[in-house]
Amino acid sequence: MDTKTAGWVTDVRLTPPSLDDNTADTDRLKKALARHIGVDDVIADPVSLRDLPRNLKQWGYRCRCAYFKNGGCFHLIDVQNPENPNPFAGIAVDLGTTRVVMEMINLADGASIVQHAFDNPQGEIGPDILERVHFADTPGGLIKLHRLIVDAINGRIGRMCEEAGIPRSRVCLMAVAGNTAMTHLFANLDPHGIIREPYIPAANTFGAIRSSSLGIEMGLNGRVFVFPNVGSYFGGDLIAGAVHAGFHESEKISLLVDVGTNAEVLLGNREWLVACAGAAGPALEGGVSEIGMTAGPGVIDTVSIDPETKTFHIGTIEEMPPLGICGSGMIDLAAALFLSGMLDIRGRLVPGACGARYGEKDGVGHVVLVSQENSATGEELVISQVDIDSLIRSKAAMYTILETILGYVGIDFSDIGVFYVAGTFGSFIKPRSAISIGMIPDLPEKTYQSLGNSSLKGAVRLLSERAVMDHIDSVRDRITYLELNVNQDFMNRFSAAKFLPHTDRSRFPSVQAG
Amino acid sequence: MDTKTAGWVTDVRLTPPSLDDNTADTDRLKKALARHIGVDDVIADPVSLRDLPRNLKQWGYRCRCAYFKNGGCFHLIDVQNPENPNPFAGIAVDLGTTRVVMEMINLADGASIVQHAFDNPQGEIGPDILERVHFADTPGGLIKLHRLIVDAINGRIGRMCEEAGIPRSRVCLMAVAGNTAMTHLFANLDPHGIIREPYIPAANTFGAIRSSSLGIEMGLNGRVFVFPNVGSYFGGDLIAGAVHAGFHESEKISLLVDVGTNAEVLLGNREWLVACAGAAGPALEGGVSEIGMTAGPGVIDTVSIDPETKTFHIGTIEEMPPLGICGSGMIDLAAALFLSGMLDIRGRLVPGACGARYGEKDGVGHVVLVSQENSATGEELVISQVDIDSLIRSKAAMYTILETILGYVGIDFSDIGVFYVAGTFGSFIKPRSAISIGMIPDLPEKTYQSLGNSSLKGAVRLLSERAVMDHIDSVRDRITYLELNVNQDFMNRFSAAKFLPHTDRSRFPSVQAG
Repeated sequence: MDTKTAGWVTDVRLTPPSLDDNTADTDRLKKALARHIGVDDVIADPVSLRDLPRNLKQWGYRCRCAYFKNGGCFHLIDVQNPENPNPFAGIAVDLGTTRVVMEMINLADGASIVQHAFDNPQGEIGPDILERVHFADTPGGLIKLHRLIVDAINGRIGRMCEEAGIPRSRVCLMAVAGNTAMTHLFANLDPHGIIREPYIPAANTFGAIRSSSLGIEMGLNGRVFVFPNVGSYFGGDLIAGAVHAGFHESEKISLLVDVGTNAEVLLGNREWLVACAGAAGPALEGGVSEIGMTAGPGVIDTVSIDPETKTFHIGTIEEMPPLGICGSGMIDLAAALFLSGMLDIRGRLVPGACGARYGEKDGVGHVVLVSQENSATGEELVISQVDIDSLIRSKAAMYTILETILGYVGIDFSDIGVFYVAGTFGSFIKPRSAISIGMIPDLPEKTYQSLGNSSLKGAVRLLSERAVMDHIDSVRDRITYLELNVNQDFMNRFSAAKFLPHTDRSRFPSVQAG
Repeated sequence: MDTKTAGWVTDVRLTPPSLDDNTADTDRLKKALARHIGVDDVIADPVSLRDLPRNLKQWGYRCRCAYFKNGGCFHLIDVQNPENPNPFAGIAVDLGTTRVVMEMINLADGASIVQHAFDNPQGEIGPDILERVHFADTPGGLIKLHRLIVDAINGRIGRMCEEAGIPRSRVCLMAVAGNTAMTHLFANLDPHGIIREPYIPAANTFGAIRSSSLGIEMGLNGRVFVFPNVGSYFGGDLIAGAVHAGFHESEKISLLVDVGTNAEVLLGNREWLVACAGAAGPALEGGVSEIGMTAGPGVIDTVSIDPETKTFHIGTIEEMPPLGICGSGMIDLAAALFLSGMLDIRGRLVPGACGARYGEKDGVGHVVLVSQENSATGEELVISQVDIDSLIRSKAAMYTILETILGYVGIDFSDIGVFYVAGTFGSFIKPRSAISIGMIPDLPEKTYQSLGNSSLKGAVRLLSERAVMDHIDSVRDRITYLELNVNQDFMNRFSAAKFLPHTDRSRFPSVQAG
């Protein structure tokens, strides 16, 4: 990567003025910068360049420019002495409903400077989108939600600047990727229409908003780019993920899945894109099972069962005594139970195969995962038939959504070059286990790639590669959003997918259940 | 002019949202507006459109948009109920060194609403550019000059709104045309370089600045367009005049002259443009002669002398008793004196021909214009040989500048289709008189057109015709600025032009001196 031209910071050398070339200082700079970055024109507010004539002289007609693009026009953001040791900084923000992650980078070379993560303070209003959107409808509700997140971000900018030893005034750019509701609350826009038919957000595209109009405390002419959404259920976080995964560059057909309470799916390549979103069920977020929880120390994230001895091997995060189980742990567990014959193809626990681990309570079967003495809670950790049913509904929904979107486009799973799994959940999921229970198609394991925090990475990429800006809107504009009609056909496919791995075993040749 | 599409206000009808078209409200509006005005994209800050979802529903998905263009991008400024009786308003400003004129127009149809004129309050610092630029160099000087003009303009916006019964929030656009120094002071930019070699302004182009960054009190997203300058001595006021005169549209070669202490000249057509500026002498602004003054009630603006009886016919502004004489009066007087034989071809008063009106004081000849009893001052109004010499230097400078610029391009005066005379002075000058003394070439009188306040009119035109915006920068960019080298050749031509009308009488066949 050519650090001088790839990002949003460029060093510029100007021809000093003379009687033969009496172009004004601002215009001289604009022309030189436009030439350096290969564009026709750069917009600069001369009022904000009040000190330029004096500075240019002092700096020997060399300077470092930070700029950005909005709606096709390049805007000069700030100009500094090229010898200034403080870099121009940008901050990428993954604006999650639950968790917010911010990464400060050097805009000149894209290098990471410092990263912070914190719980979205709007959680005090309500843990999920629905509650917050309803709260926004109450008097003063929207502004309260807006201030909560903006204040938290402002506080973190301050701490990050302090840790990095960079003045706040040097933070020129921010790129924010979040779902449609979170970006609306961030921008103080009414989210009312997002959850109500016909599901109309206030804005799809935000562009590069002036930081002052959002109340974000950064450099004077700072700009905040908010990733655009496709609709109420397909947000800018996914567009950022798509950009990070390189959908705009790839000839191969890729599939991106962000799994959570909602499964969001993007399918396509640089030519075409189809997206859909559907309820995958809360089981994958650890929301249903009595011992389900989100990933954290002591949470079970891997389970394997020796097919011969039926011995359970249980792994926890940071190897702490087990507290509960997360979504990827549940998938592992279900796969292990199925492969060892403790779960039949209909997803029913097989008491005989479970042996001493099988139990019943109020007529509902369960399997003991961790004994009372080994558990961190002082109680047995058990997974009941109800928990398993819930997981199976989720996995069936996931598979059916994938089947539906591929069917809509008219391609087979074998046509998929890369299958990206995004989100925190995506970094933990083991494709082999998810394949075993028929949650995802039976593709070679190397087809599956975990993207990690793809929203954050997409936002970082925008701040470090100028060219990315040109792809964001074209990615967004090219997406055909497929409304999932839960009709009879969908329900038939869903029913077939509720088997382990599927009623049609030929679809999962690699899965050899015990 | 199609009032619905020509200006910066357009009524837009949107397709109401539905499950089949769930485009967000902001994006729906942007797309509809872009389609209505025939552009690819319109930039709208969603934060400033917070109330759009509710409003669109209430207004039946119809609205009135005010927008503007900056650096090639269209920006949405404000959206209103199309039934709102208050128009979106724009204010054109002729930012003169001495006098400021503001005109409020209805942006929907370009109709004038109210006009105000007032003395530039920076006059209290110094009457001319040089004094103000020096004052700007003193501590706190620039900000004081800036506040003086901005406060005055803000006050006038308030009064104009009150008189028109239009809320200040409805003032969306302002277009300011002024010389390079005045626009720098208006924008709080250091004018230091303008008057010092190599004569580098801080800015040539200003674009459409946010009103908030200038401290101009108007609508929330208001934009202030400042006409660009070509250099320190060819300002945005002349670009506005050029646009008003239609240089960008005309195939014919036109000449525009703005006469004052400086004579600014623009020559060309829609293909090419050459400009120059030179000192024409203060005589034309009434600054030298003892009785010279700027136009006002009681000021002599027309003089004729009966060639037979040598009777003087003197006209004053508003027919008040005579107080003094303005520039156009001086030209009339010199022409009348010359045509009646009282002034010879070298510009010397002829005592014999002047008769009783001739007098001398300290060995300097003079002619009595108004007797003591007819004068409003209680004293004789006389014009001395010194005053006449000064006028002749000015007229010779004017003619020499015109001769030089035409010579540079290689064309003759006869190639000029229209000769525009601009400025307040231009509205009073009588071409016949100016030709008689050889100040301007001997072209048919219909070639001469007075433009009146061409800066103001150019600014009004920009606010009422969208297409004009595209021509301003191209007019500015196409101008070749000709530095007047006061070399031997120039001095020779100047000397020849100091005769009445010229040493080469064949150039003025229509002038028949007495």
